Amino acid sequence: MVSKVVNNLQFDSNVSRKLTHISTFTLKFINMANRITQLFDIQYPIIQAGMLWCSPWELAAAVSNAGGLGIIGAASMYPEVLKVHVKRCKEATRKPFAVNMPLLYPNIEEHMQTVVDEKVPIVFTSAGNPKAWTQHLKSHGIKVVHVVSSVKFALKSQEAGVDAIVAEGFEAGGHNGREETTTLCLIPEVAKNIDIPLIAAGGIASGEAMLAAMILGADAVQIGSKFVASKESSAHQNFKNEVIQAKEGGTGLVLKDVTPVRLIKNDFHNRIFEAEQRGAGVDELKEILGRARAKKGMFEGDMKEGELEIGQVSSMINEVKSAAEIVLDIKNEYNEAKMTLMNATNQFSW
Amino acid sequence: MVSKVVNNLQFDSNVSRKLTHISTFTLKFINMANRITQLFDIQYPIIQAGMLWCSPWELAAAVSNAGGLGIIGAASMYPEVLKVHVKRCKEATRKPFAVNMPLLYPNIEEHMQTVVDEKVPIVFTSAGNPKAWTQHLKSHGIKVVHVVSSVKFALKSQEAGVDAIVAEGFEAGGHNGREETTTLCLIPEVAKNIDIPLIAAGGIASGEAMLAAMILGADAVQIGSKFVASKESSAHQNFKNEVIQAKEGGTGLVLKDVTPVRLIKNDFHNRIFEAEQRGAGVDELKEILGRARAKKGMFEGDMKEGELEIGQVSSMINEVKSAAEIVLDIKNEYNEAKMTLMNATNQFSW
Repeated sequence: MVSKVVNNLQFDSNVSRKLTHISTFTLKFINMANRITQLFDIQYPIIQAGMLWCSPWELAAAVSNAGGLGIIGAASMYPEVLKVHVKRCKEATRKPFAVNMPLLYPNIEEHMQTVVDEKVPIVFTSAGNPKAWTQHLKSHGIKVVHVVSSVKFALKSQEAGVDAIVAEGFEAGGHNGREETTTLCLIPEVAKNIDIPLIAAGGIASGEAMLAAMILGADAVQIGSKFVASKESSAHQNFKNEVIQAKEGGTGLVLKDVTPVRLIKNDFHNRIFEAEQRGAGVDELKEILGRARAKKGMFEGDMKEGELEIGQVSSMINEVKSAAEIVLDIKNEYNEAKMTLMNATNQFSW
Repeated sequence: MVSKVVNNLQFDSNVSRKLTHISTFTLKFINMANRITQLFDIQYPIIQAGMLWCSPWELAAAVSNAGGLGIIGAASMYPEVLKVHVKRCKEATRKPFAVNMPLLYPNIEEHMQTVVDEKVPIVFTSAGNPKAWTQHLKSHGIKVVHVVSSVKFALKSQEAGVDAIVAEGFEAGGHNGREETTTLCLIPEVAKNIDIPLIAAGGIASGEAMLAAMILGADAVQIGSKFVASKESSAHQNFKNEVIQAKEGGTGLVLKDVTPVRLIKNDFHNRIFEAEQRGAGVDELKEILGRARAKKGMFEGDMKEGELEIGQVSSMINEVKSAAEIVLDIKNEYNEAKMTLMNATNQFSW
């Protein structure tokens, strides 16, 4: 290890001068690079987001079997449906998997009972107060991760005793923070302010973006959009096609006064956008929104009137692949980008 | 070099399997890592943004003398003022420097005459059609860089014959694109679509963020906010103090129907924000905006009623330093982050 360090140093005199001083960034990076793989007992720090209408047991099991962490998206499941998905997932993989639960879910008690009864090893919570359920879940030996979009809520989550945090940037698909802080600005800020493991989310669909997130202080990445367009995703084929055709600038963040959400700019999005432009009130916006818009679009395939939740990074997704291929691609791109950087080192005069 | 590659490979079997296949990303990164330092004849691919009211000859010369590329911000200068700054900058440094010009500037012809007469080596253009002046400037031996915030305008700029592009993400301070694409999502998209050198801007104020941007496909970075808070910046001391005190979530993007601009959330910002919330029209917004708001805030130091243009990354800026210190810090952080990554390689089992 030391020989490797010295070995590297001869290629960069700027670095050798820094050897005596190892920054907090360096320590954090070296010591904690594998905190997430250790915490979850997984092979790669690649986590599939538990997206409503797109994250059934088939997807979660496939991601976990491929060495990442698969997550069942409970937000769009009735309690009895979640029970079935958890049971099936346990049959389909011996690897750890998780369930994602928005804490505002109406039947949250039943969902919580299911993960306890079925001994789900990890639960990701979002959209609510992390104090509400963290200790209950931990008392049953379940690891808890909370999703945040600001430093303020990252600190609240750490105080609540969660095992790790997902910090999600403005570019992320679906429901989104009011601060509008992007992943590039949010990850180093949160990393600087918390001690527990940090998972970066928003704008990540490649090994290069994963490496960038790790350099910024993340211990792992959570990937949503790319898994929406996976073979095992339960997204409607129309939605998968829409995602792989999406171009840069093709999504927009709307409903900021109701619940901010990033959507593909389809007819429904545009109607909401125009209403907001003319200063429509919350009641009118809720009326336009109506009920079950996400199901209509993402699950039933109505590309005009449905709510199509996806991230900005959809512009970089051009193919529907299996979950296993996606995990392997990202791992290989990550390693290739690292190798490229190591080679490039010699060529930098600075 | 080859021995170094082989040397690295023995630490990562995943990588060795990839050696036969070098991706476009790899080629681009290896071959073009120094395209910007070569194009501008500078030591480090670190470029100071030419920010209105903050970028006088003192700042541009200091950055260029430190090995980066300094830029005079002409947007807030009368033609005769720009002449003085260019002459002083030439006296203060023998290194290349640039002038930034928004193409919508009323006296643009006079500014253009100045850079030609004074043989300014590089001009950064923004806020306008790159076709308008690129060939004229190039016919006088001036290198031209155009600032964009989308793939569409990156392609238009390349067609117009510019030498390089700055792609600026949603987190950037000041005037901003309508697509709201973040740096993390914009840089790989633009890198994939253009052949000329690419400079990443928005959310970059550290060597870690610079390394992340390079991994995403950038050849260099442009840094604004951190240089606003530099000793040589002409920003009012009140504004510098405001920047180093800014917290995550402390900026907002407003005036989207007029000209989108990211500002510190002060009284003026909040008044505009509230007007937009109730659907105020362009005329009313322009009336609230009035004239010379940026000067009032950034240059005259009115922290309540002034327009305070700054990026989200201001939350990571905690100290006013000299331009030379900033360039050196970023270079050292960049090299340290690279070294950390190389050491970490051994510890990754994947």
